[in-house]
Amino acid sequence: MPSSKRVSDLGETGLLRRIYARFARPSPGVLIGPGDDAAALRVPPGRLLLATQDDLVEGTHFQLDWTDPARLAARLFAVNLSDLAAMGDCRPLACIVSAGLPPGLPASWAQGLLAGLGRCARRYRTPLAGGNLARSKKVFLSMCAMGTARPGGLVRRSGARPGDLLAGVGPLGEAAAGVSLLRSGSVPRWGTPLVRAFWEVRPQLEAGRRLAGLATSMLDNSDGLLRSARILSEASGVRIRLDLKEAPASQALRRFCRERRLDLREHQARGGEDYGLVFTVPPGRLPRGAYRLGSVEKGRGVVFEGGAEPFEHFR
Amino acid sequence: MPSSKRVSDLGETGLLRRIYARFARPSPGVLIGPGDDAAALRVPPGRLLLATQDDLVEGTHFQLDWTDPARLAARLFAVNLSDLAAMGDCRPLACIVSAGLPPGLPASWAQGLLAGLGRCARRYRTPLAGGNLARSKKVFLSMCAMGTARPGGLVRRSGARPGDLLAGVGPLGEAAAGVSLLRSGSVPRWGTPLVRAFWEVRPQLEAGRRLAGLATSMLDNSDGLLRSARILSEASGVRIRLDLKEAPASQALRRFCRERRLDLREHQARGGEDYGLVFTVPPGRLPRGAYRLGSVEKGRGVVFEGGAEPFEHFR
Repeated sequence: MPSSKRVSDLGETGLLRRIYARFARPSPGVLIGPGDDAAALRVPPGRLLLATQDDLVEGTHFQLDWTDPARLAARLFAVNLSDLAAMGDCRPLACIVSAGLPPGLPASWAQGLLAGLGRCARRYRTPLAGGNLARSKKVFLSMCAMGTARPGGLVRRSGARPGDLLAGVGPLGEAAAGVSLLRSGSVPRWGTPLVRAFWEVRPQLEAGRRLAGLATSMLDNSDGLLRSARILSEASGVRIRLDLKEAPASQALRRFCRERRLDLREHQARGGEDYGLVFTVPPGRLPRGAYRLGSVEKGRGVVFEGGAEPFEHFR
Repeated sequence: MPSSKRVSDLGETGLLRRIYARFARPSPGVLIGPGDDAAALRVPPGRLLLATQDDLVEGTHFQLDWTDPARLAARLFAVNLSDLAAMGDCRPLACIVSAGLPPGLPASWAQGLLAGLGRCARRYRTPLAGGNLARSKKVFLSMCAMGTARPGGLVRRSGARPGDLLAGVGPLGEAAAGVSLLRSGSVPRWGTPLVRAFWEVRPQLEAGRRLAGLATSMLDNSDGLLRSARILSEASGVRIRLDLKEAPASQALRRFCRERRLDLREHQARGGEDYGLVFTVPPGRLPRGAYRLGSVEKGRGVVFEGGAEPFEHFR
């Protein structure tokens, strides 16, 4: 009965052997990969190193009963590479992953996780260069993603100027509806695209590179547009006025909001699970594929008049 | 009653504000530190980037009831920088820390953790360049430590040759005795130095740099000498014969072993909590401050005849 095997049956040594077999491949940026005390990476001359770390925690970001390990691996890559994308001109270099696993976890789950990490490492050209395994009561995954950037190609959070437009790329609110359906325990057929939007988040690396030199400020929309706008407003010392009437919304998202009696724009302003990019550009410079989300003014705070209730936040 | 404040009272925003205030300082290697989507770091031209990640998990590596948060921060730095030290010629560049915290954790505990991280960042000249906060049922800390190295100054695990000596630097078995006393719930006065050895692990960065160009293989002794020897043996394709009679042992460690009826050398062969360096050198090149731990032969596996029972491991 191979399906009843547990992580404790593989043991740390067994798991490490599988990891080395899968990931100890040479790549241009990785001189020493998994299997030594530390990874050794090559940073091309003249480029800066970018590094970020983000986690997925059982009970907080996912529940084991509705989580396929390969999808979780994909989401771990997406949320981390999304942070790199939000810096502008970034090319992924490598990543390092820590996994906290309960000994009683099915071995097949751990192997599904490794397979998923391997697929994403190839898809995003971000080799897994090292990591750590720890025994833990609940599953957690922590990834440090590294990339390199032209020093002049970075976009900070602090460069928004009065007169700029606030804009976005990527879906808005679709994934938050998907995770809400997952948590409810039953996903109607019409909701499938929303759940897929949650699991198949794509980091906006190409969009980020196109926006380098164009956007005056940028971040990835991980905790919702209201929060993102507040962060840009505080970092840049400006007021942001949200206006979501041009934001894209799928039929499934519109139906989700109707059935839950939610205001569509309010929902889109709060849900950040899509990990799109939110940025500011000078007026008239909105790039193709991006949509307007509001405007930047002198002052402080965030104003949102388009939701069910007026919302105004001052720090 | 400020002492009854919880992490949930500070909120993520409150915690982040404290983190930015403490860590958003310029340093030569850190161009962009905490507060943006990713950290931007400068890797000096011609040097490789080294990166490693290690975790401390509540219930696995520590219990909240015997853990001071500042000591935990120190241990997090030590276990990670120890991995960098084991690569040979390494200078720390920066680190990134993920923290999983329960909302009900005392706010003072989280603030003690931040203060401890700040002290270690200064002590080890390893600025905290970014991180992540996540809600979690149990505390976990995951650090990615980065350093830079001369390409010719790296020591792998795979270079041990028959005829080499096996050697160590740093304490051996003292910290494992300390953690055993902590777990037992009562620490006798004579055991204080052992507990201190556990909490005050020093990463062997200077020793690592001295050993670059001298050691033929090296790793940090995190999981015990038997395990370390097995790893070097497998990576290098050699047999390692352990002989611990020259290994240092404090009076407190000798007493611990006497009172617990443990064989001293057996205990030293199994406990790895000290994070010393274990390495191989050509005969006659044992550096000052290091001690002999055995010899390297043709063959496979690890032979340890000095313990209470003969031990022989073949993969």
